[in-house]
Amino acid sequence: MAKTQLEFWFEFGSNYSYLSVMRIEELARKADVQIAWRPFLLGPIFRDFGWNTSPFVLQAEKGRYMWKDMERQALKYGLEFRKPSVFPRTAVLPMRVAMLASNQPWIGGFCKAVMRQNFVEDADINDPANVRLALAGLVPEPDEVLAAAQADENKLRLRDQTTEAKNRGVFGAPTFFAGDEMFWGNDRLEDAVAFAASKICISNSSL
Amino acid sequence: MAKTQLEFWFEFGSNYSYLSVMRIEELARKADVQIAWRPFLLGPIFRDFGWNTSPFVLQAEKGRYMWKDMERQALKYGLEFRKPSVFPRTAVLPMRVAMLASNQPWIGGFCKAVMRQNFVEDADINDPANVRLALAGLVPEPDEVLAAAQADENKLRLRDQTTEAKNRGVFGAPTFFAGDEMFWGNDRLEDAVAFAASKICISNSSL
Repeated sequence: MAKTQLEFWFEFGSNYSYLSVMRIEELARKADVQIAWRPFLLGPIFRDFGWNTSPFVLQAEKGRYMWKDMERQALKYGLEFRKPSVFPRTAVLPMRVAMLASNQPWIGGFCKAVMRQNFVEDADINDPANVRLALAGLVPEPDEVLAAAQADENKLRLRDQTTEAKNRGVFGAPTFFAGDEMFWGNDRLEDAVAFAASKICISNSSL
Repeated sequence: MAKTQLEFWFEFGSNYSYLSVMRIEELARKADVQIAWRPFLLGPIFRDFGWNTSPFVLQAEKGRYMWKDMERQALKYGLEFRKPSVFPRTAVLPMRVAMLASNQPWIGGFCKAVMRQNFVEDADINDPANVRLALAGLVPEPDEVLAAAQADENKLRLRDQTTEAKNRGVFGAPTFFAGDEMFWGNDRLEDAVAFAASKICISNSSL
């Protein structure tokens, strides 16, 4: 029987996506849930709301609090964290690589490497040199992956996936879907995994 | 030695404040933390952001998700919940009573009764008859409390407390403070209580 999938919609520029990218694989493995990696761009979603950047930038009070919260949350999860000097960072290039690699066994490793660059090393994640670094050790030919990621067909797939996010009611990242059940935010990752796992149990018992 | 206080900033119109009002007393008691009840009005805070109502109304996608999330969260905590037919509800009258009663032993019981009216019974919480009902059994003379709550001095205290919330960077409800450490949202209630409790330990060990 196929495992129930948990769709993981994320953005490399999103700080709370960082916490989920670093945590989701272990949680999913323990619950025997399969992750479907769903990169999408937050920019077009926010523009639809009439925002030209992150709500954490537009709302200064909320932004100040968010960085404090990030420090505490990272500490709670035992994750390294440094506030990026640029926020939100443009992430189109690594997002395209993630789109291309969604079903590859190295997708998790790549996403963690990019997130570490953004939220620990304070590096420009849209710089091809850094994307190459994130790919190093995961694929034999990083340059070939970069070229394929920049092909028109793959660019279009990422745009289409962003449109799908919008059509399914996604308004921020990270967002998780177990079937049609939507969960928003790193705070709901455990609930989303548990919900997906419970669906497997129901399917099993109905065999 | 005085217990460390956890300040609890809340609004009767706020759905996530409902979850915290119903949960905070037990959590605080178990952690030996004292609650300082801090009612404030969300309306003026939101107007400062240029919003004329709740962000859950202004952002339809987020609003739809929030009601789904409320159902799941209430179920998780074993709390009754019915989506109110009016949202957000005006709550000035019961908020004034909460301001008056902040330091009374019956503040918790009153807040829970008002929140039940809004988020379980779908009742107009700004109706004096319902505020009287919420006070019944808690105070000998509900009408006297209502009259005192409507006195100019008490109205001004609630306005001042709302200004204090704004000045301290509060941008939503519920919000918790342990000293200067701010925690936002029902999702952070446990963290806030634990933080306040750890401050007691530090004080104890330094005796």
